[in-house]
Amino acid sequence: MTNRITIAEAAQHVGETVEIAGWLYNLRKSGKIVFPIVRDGTGLMQGVALKNNLPEDVFENLKHLTQESSLLVRGKLRAEARAPGGYEMDVESVDILQKVSEADPYPITPKDHGVEFLMDHRHLWLRSQRQHAIIRVRHEIIKAVRDYFDNHGFTLVDTPIFTPAACEGTTTLFEVNYFDDEKAYLTQSGQLYNEANAMAFGKVYCFGPTFRAEKSKTRRHLTEFWMVEPEMAFADLEEIKRVAEEFVVYIVGRVLDKRREELKVLERDTTKLEAVQSPFVRMSYDDAVKNLQAHGSEIQWGSDFGGGDETILTQQFDRPMLVDRFPSEIKAFYMAPDPDRPEVALGVDVLAPEGYGEIIGGGQRIHDPELLLRRIEEHKLPKEAFDWYIDLRKYGTVPHGGFGMGIERAVAWICGLEHIRETIAFPRMLYRLRP
Amino acid sequence: MTNRITIAEAAQHVGETVEIAGWLYNLRKSGKIVFPIVRDGTGLMQGVALKNNLPEDVFENLKHLTQESSLLVRGKLRAEARAPGGYEMDVESVDILQKVSEADPYPITPKDHGVEFLMDHRHLWLRSQRQHAIIRVRHEIIKAVRDYFDNHGFTLVDTPIFTPAACEGTTTLFEVNYFDDEKAYLTQSGQLYNEANAMAFGKVYCFGPTFRAEKSKTRRHLTEFWMVEPEMAFADLEEIKRVAEEFVVYIVGRVLDKRREELKVLERDTTKLEAVQSPFVRMSYDDAVKNLQAHGSEIQWGSDFGGGDETILTQQFDRPMLVDRFPSEIKAFYMAPDPDRPEVALGVDVLAPEGYGEIIGGGQRIHDPELLLRRIEEHKLPKEAFDWYIDLRKYGTVPHGGFGMGIERAVAWICGLEHIRETIAFPRMLYRLRP
Repeated sequence: MTNRITIAEAAQHVGETVEIAGWLYNLRKSGKIVFPIVRDGTGLMQGVALKNNLPEDVFENLKHLTQESSLLVRGKLRAEARAPGGYEMDVESVDILQKVSEADPYPITPKDHGVEFLMDHRHLWLRSQRQHAIIRVRHEIIKAVRDYFDNHGFTLVDTPIFTPAACEGTTTLFEVNYFDDEKAYLTQSGQLYNEANAMAFGKVYCFGPTFRAEKSKTRRHLTEFWMVEPEMAFADLEEIKRVAEEFVVYIVGRVLDKRREELKVLERDTTKLEAVQSPFVRMSYDDAVKNLQAHGSEIQWGSDFGGGDETILTQQFDRPMLVDRFPSEIKAFYMAPDPDRPEVALGVDVLAPEGYGEIIGGGQRIHDPELLLRRIEEHKLPKEAFDWYIDLRKYGTVPHGGFGMGIERAVAWICGLEHIRETIAFPRMLYRLRP
Repeated sequence: MTNRITIAEAAQHVGETVEIAGWLYNLRKSGKIVFPIVRDGTGLMQGVALKNNLPEDVFENLKHLTQESSLLVRGKLRAEARAPGGYEMDVESVDILQKVSEADPYPITPKDHGVEFLMDHRHLWLRSQRQHAIIRVRHEIIKAVRDYFDNHGFTLVDTPIFTPAACEGTTTLFEVNYFDDEKAYLTQSGQLYNEANAMAFGKVYCFGPTFRAEKSKTRRHLTEFWMVEPEMAFADLEEIKRVAEEFVVYIVGRVLDKRREELKVLERDTTKLEAVQSPFVRMSYDDAVKNLQAHGSEIQWGSDFGGGDETILTQQFDRPMLVDRFPSEIKAFYMAPDPDRPEVALGVDVLAPEGYGEIIGGGQRIHDPELLLRRIEEHKLPKEAFDWYIDLRKYGTVPHGGFGMGIERAVAWICGLEHIRETIAFPRMLYRLRP
């Protein structure tokens, strides 16, 4: 039996006769030769099939084979610089597993399709080279994220998806019917639980899907997105900023190191990614507001940035920005105030360059039990739901903090994508729950 | 300023004066000496504090310090075989950050507490050595799972949590209010989407939380649990069994290699884990039924195993079992029938030894479009909801399959735990949604 290999393994089998199992990606014909390009999920392999070398029916069947038909091809491998992937197969035999019907052909052709059509056919669209490149970069980013934390002494502690109460405000919660008429809510952030875990393990991270029922239909929002959230006991704002910067440099470096080919498919300008080095631009919220006003924004001190503001800011620099000390008023109840200026919070956002904007938000949490209780009252939150969270300030409270990075926003930035919908296999949005 | 280290780093700092930031785990007194044991999430460090070496108030405060108070201790490190962790600190100074109130002491003391009490205080219970060991083994298993698939050519493709339809039957679905009165369901398995991804990438895996609204209150059920699911194009049942076996051997080996200390804390009999080697016991469902009947079970051919049946089976062998070819009737609609015996399905379960039972379920999927359509009709499933799934059989169908492993069951087995509730930081069960 012929040795079956994947296309990614071709380099180790030059000169050998091997079998590749895959799908017909493209076919060119030239008289007595056909050039089938086969994909197997790991790459593309061009075959060279000569009429004279194959039984007549095999050659004819191959010649009329339809896109995405499944097949086994066997033949000898040659290095061939002009072929996609750098290798070519002299086809010796072909088994067609399924010929896609000519009456009902594969719906995604090389011509342009509208986005809604492609999204409706997401289960098939994923077979395209561009989507492969994005998903492989996403995989690399996720690996890099985990490696960074695993190699820096963080313990992975998964936080729950079902939560009894809101963390980031109640208007954007998805409600679930739990048992016996109880209600649960889908997590918007693992942070509160992360704080308990940090008091147990010192440095922790969680990494899973999070949910926001936002009725916004922008190129930056999904209702279901993955977030990684580290949390550190005994960490202050400066340490949180240091870790966030080192972390972002690390993941961008890993993608440049391992996924050059994919970035090329995406036509990503890699010089922009190579510029992502320490030190990042550091700016206070105060200075950012002045900068924005000087660039024509109508923002006033006390407001959050609009998407347009982040674009104005981040287009001025070639590397990410750390913006810190936002007004406490616009931040979550648990954000620690600056002791020297309590009207600002010890929070930080990391904004990606090229107009991408916020990819990370974080900061120091309140560790003083009385201040936390006051904030829970001021925000009119149900104290009983936070009893366990208050416990963390009663039994050995320490300064602590962390941040969250949305994976899809990081993928969109690193891949250079216009819209976040391509950063995940099956995106979920306001009007998109299928396939 | 004194160099701050974690307790895990002590070995590299013997003879140095260092600072450790943590919580008081325990305190012994002996006249003019106190022995505070500090935990920092990475380990335990015993301090030796002599009355004569410290200011009187510092010594007195330390002597009366309460459990879980937060503090900084500084001093010189010594190797000391009798101390927990193997090192000891000669205390030179102490800063108490927060003394836990004597009137409202840390609720979890070394005495025995009931399980409900501990579960209600899960946010604090996680600070105990036993819970640390379990969560660290869990982290290692998750790393090993990802490393196995990453190193064997699988692409990570996350599948959606919000799904429009059921995969494994409709009675155990959690329903979510999506927008504008639409309903979504929380995923019970990423498998159907995995199949689309396998047709795009060849070999894929997804790894995330899954949900079952089962009204069962057993030691093996959570409503929210993490599952890893690989799926492979061009794979038959034998290949799926081969991968499942190699995978289980790999993750058990990794835990033995990296987490001996934690297994010791859990008093796990590691000889039982060392026996987990290839080849696993292989048995058909037919033979398993005969075996069970011979051991007194009342099972009849055609029924699924009860929990007791899995215990009877797995206590006979020192390594996991692969049981295959279950009756098609009791398996999901997408399971491929054995071509030689269509009344049985090409499915396989992996049962862990020592009575733990099923940790993996999987098999070959139907790839014939007509048979799949027939099964969807027989199971009275709404065809429209599966149109995209049927597409996978129209556009280049190939034999394929995979499996799913529930992480919490694997953790329970490898750690040797009685109940699954300790295998995740914040377990969710029928009557448990808090903290």
